[in-house]
Amino acid sequence: MSENCDSLQNLINAFTNLPSVGTKTAERYAYSVINMDEDTVKNFAESLIQAKQNLHYCKTCGDFTDKDICNICERRQSKVICVVKEPKDVKAIEKAKNYTGLYHVLHGTISPLENKGPEDIRIKELITRVTENEIDEVIMATNPDIEGEVTATYIAKLLKPLGIKVTRLAQGIQMGSDVQYADEVTLTKALQDRREI
Amino acid sequence: MSENCDSLQNLINAFTNLPSVGTKTAERYAYSVINMDEDTVKNFAESLIQAKQNLHYCKTCGDFTDKDICNICERRQSKVICVVKEPKDVKAIEKAKNYTGLYHVLHGTISPLENKGPEDIRIKELITRVTENEIDEVIMATNPDIEGEVTATYIAKLLKPLGIKVTRLAQGIQMGSDVQYADEVTLTKALQDRREI
Repeated sequence: MSENCDSLQNLINAFTNLPSVGTKTAERYAYSVINMDEDTVKNFAESLIQAKQNLHYCKTCGDFTDKDICNICERRQSKVICVVKEPKDVKAIEKAKNYTGLYHVLHGTISPLENKGPEDIRIKELITRVTENEIDEVIMATNPDIEGEVTATYIAKLLKPLGIKVTRLAQGIQMGSDVQYADEVTLTKALQDRREI
Repeated sequence: MSENCDSLQNLINAFTNLPSVGTKTAERYAYSVINMDEDTVKNFAESLIQAKQNLHYCKTCGDFTDKDICNICERRQSKVICVVKEPKDVKAIEKAKNYTGLYHVLHGTISPLENKGPEDIRIKELITRVTENEIDEVIMATNPDIEGEVTATYIAKLLKPLGIKVTRLAQGIQMGSDVQYADEVTLTKALQDRREI
């Protein structure tokens, strides 16, 4: 088959463009496509085109949307904004189904290594939004790594003089995990931030 | 985003149709598609449609092809046929790059549990091919499990009276593996089939 059949090889090659998909997995995917019914494959192809054509950033929060303003920005009345690095983070927090506030996607973090300064991510837009909309609280939900911490601290310094409450996602032992397997930094943080029960 | 944006959700759903792809992986794939350039996405969609539309079984060997007769059947002159369960097996053997004979894809094995008898797989076509084309040898390359063994034995019984040499892929310790980790059945087989060096 290696010397056989372009249609199959093209499809296998297409699948290897996906993250962490090697030849073996791409082959499995390709063969599974041949066994799907025709409508499923048509919908699959259509959804690829549609997603690429329609998706862009929400003018307000920067999350992906197929409209001008995303549903969350349009429908939710809230004085709380949760600031995240990427659209994926919005999806993760939405799945937890406990947050009913707004979002702001930075599309990156301050990272000298990647040559990214504060002006390269959507901080200016955040400040404008916060001041124009009487926001009470900004929750910094950037990742708990160096870039995420630096970005959170930087934004906090800008917002606090404006009288905005700035909070950070709690850090500590992961739910469902074992204390014995937690790393030292996490344990130190969990001890520092311990709370009365 | 869960209440946001059909284009993204449709694409995520489409990816979950692939084997062993859950929501998390589908999301990763979907976000990566949004970051691909437009041509790559168009080619991806096109290759899905093309594969589904063009691929069918080769009239001779039963492997996938986008023509009437696959390249291997068309180009190779050989009196040896390797019999496999699925098109994937052809691909695997071709990758080893050491076999230059023909193939015959059974599209299944004899399996009473799945209610599959000899007439449900492409055995009749094999017999016709072998007798009409003066084949010297048939290599049974069905899997080394019960169904594969039963199918190999069944076909051997049909072919031997016709004076055809029927062989089976060697079974034994896997190359690069450890003797200590080999299972009992494999070790027994490897001892029985030991060869002089």
